[in-house]
Amino acid sequence: MSSDRLAFTEALAQKAGLVALDYFRKLDTLTITQKGHQDLVSEADRNVETLIRDALSEAYPDDGILGEEHGMEEGDSGFTWVIDPIDGTANFVTGIPQWCVIIACVQQGQTLLGVIHDPVAGETFSALAGGGAFLNGKPIKVSDSESVSVGSVGVGFNGRTSVTDAVNAVGALVSKGGVFFRNASGGLMLAYTGAGRLIGYIESHMNAWDCLAGMLLIQEAGGRVQEQDIAKALYHGTRVVTGAPGVFAELTDIAESSFAPLQAAE
Amino acid sequence: MSSDRLAFTEALAQKAGLVALDYFRKLDTLTITQKGHQDLVSEADRNVETLIRDALSEAYPDDGILGEEHGMEEGDSGFTWVIDPIDGTANFVTGIPQWCVIIACVQQGQTLLGVIHDPVAGETFSALAGGGAFLNGKPIKVSDSESVSVGSVGVGFNGRTSVTDAVNAVGALVSKGGVFFRNASGGLMLAYTGAGRLIGYIESHMNAWDCLAGMLLIQEAGGRVQEQDIAKALYHGTRVVTGAPGVFAELTDIAESSFAPLQAAE
Repeated sequence: MSSDRLAFTEALAQKAGLVALDYFRKLDTLTITQKGHQDLVSEADRNVETLIRDALSEAYPDDGILGEEHGMEEGDSGFTWVIDPIDGTANFVTGIPQWCVIIACVQQGQTLLGVIHDPVAGETFSALAGGGAFLNGKPIKVSDSESVSVGSVGVGFNGRTSVTDAVNAVGALVSKGGVFFRNASGGLMLAYTGAGRLIGYIESHMNAWDCLAGMLLIQEAGGRVQEQDIAKALYHGTRVVTGAPGVFAELTDIAESSFAPLQAAE
Repeated sequence: MSSDRLAFTEALAQKAGLVALDYFRKLDTLTITQKGHQDLVSEADRNVETLIRDALSEAYPDDGILGEEHGMEEGDSGFTWVIDPIDGTANFVTGIPQWCVIIACVQQGQTLLGVIHDPVAGETFSALAGGGAFLNGKPIKVSDSESVSVGSVGVGFNGRTSVTDAVNAVGALVSKGGVFFRNASGGLMLAYTGAGRLIGYIESHMNAWDCLAGMLLIQEAGGRVQEQDIAKALYHGTRVVTGAPGVFAELTDIAESSFAPLQAAE
């Protein structure tokens, strides 16, 4: 039954991705003001989330749904869907083809499944708790790097925590011989970590809809993830420290020395 | 005649992009060791550059050619082609779909034309000196941002200058309310600046094959570029500070306060 849910979610993310891609191409062909772009992007975000919510409500009417645009709709089945219709909105609005649709499902405080779909590159990353991690249906695994000096690390930057968090992390990483990467889509950077393209990803705070799918993907691909209280993360978000087993301890050190404690957000 | 050269170069970059994309997909389907990947990537890099060199030699037998893989082949026509067969090699080798083919042509110390082609997203950025800047044939222009706190700035990181250059730049940018971006392809980040997706791009040192096409693109799209000695840059590379007119002064300040002086490279 869980694998039915995963297949359903993959197909739904791909369908949502087509609608989002249509908006993205439309933005590209319009010569409109920044304000006009912003309106169209907000419309895209809302409509893609509504499409996903409607499909979920029809298939799983008793489940809860949490989305970036429309907030939490409680359910009573014990399942909660967690949606980011367009992750990497700053890229989407300016035309950078690096953004994705994210859908996760949480059951009793555990992430059951997660899908991250990149419509431009045609890549669907998916994971099922205890069932593995996949890219377009093929198994993936995290990097075998054993040092942060071998490979690149995604560093997230957000407006919710101290602005020096990311700066400190970039500095700490580089001082250990590492290389930083930030393509402004946390969802894609987590997916890349699951696929072994990046050796890890750290960010001082992410919302549930940005990170739950990716964290499960990385775990199922053999990576490590700093322990979370998922039920709490649904409402307050969480710190994210994750990567290949061979670099996880170093990444944890970098995060601990770089990130100010989470306060208001918790 | 210059516009003939541009059309020729666009078609050539697209043809080279198809060959590179074929290697990229092959990497994706192989389960091979890191070493095996590296060998295939080196082969891709060399073969794509050879394809471009052969086409140029046939069409313009008296021109010089400078490429990342095979070095400088002097000509006597006054034209020198400058090639990066695959920019963003670290992305290419790990499977991150953010890399590009770059071809520029320099005439008497001035960049005459430049093409940056992204085969995955299907985007061809091109510029002709005095003739404008284009994305898939449509005119583009840089951002109208008037503050580094509005929009994102690409920050380059390289192994040739002080490792603190990029860290300092990220810190200085963030302290001004800005947001950093680094998708590990300097060519794409310069292209994004030309198209107004990023508001600027700074890097303490780039090689000619990475930056000449992008710098022309940005100038032709209405942006500003820190003055260069192109003839010298062909052999030694150069510092790159470039962006929208409204943020160029701030970016110059950030670069000056962040980057150690270029020494060995000059």
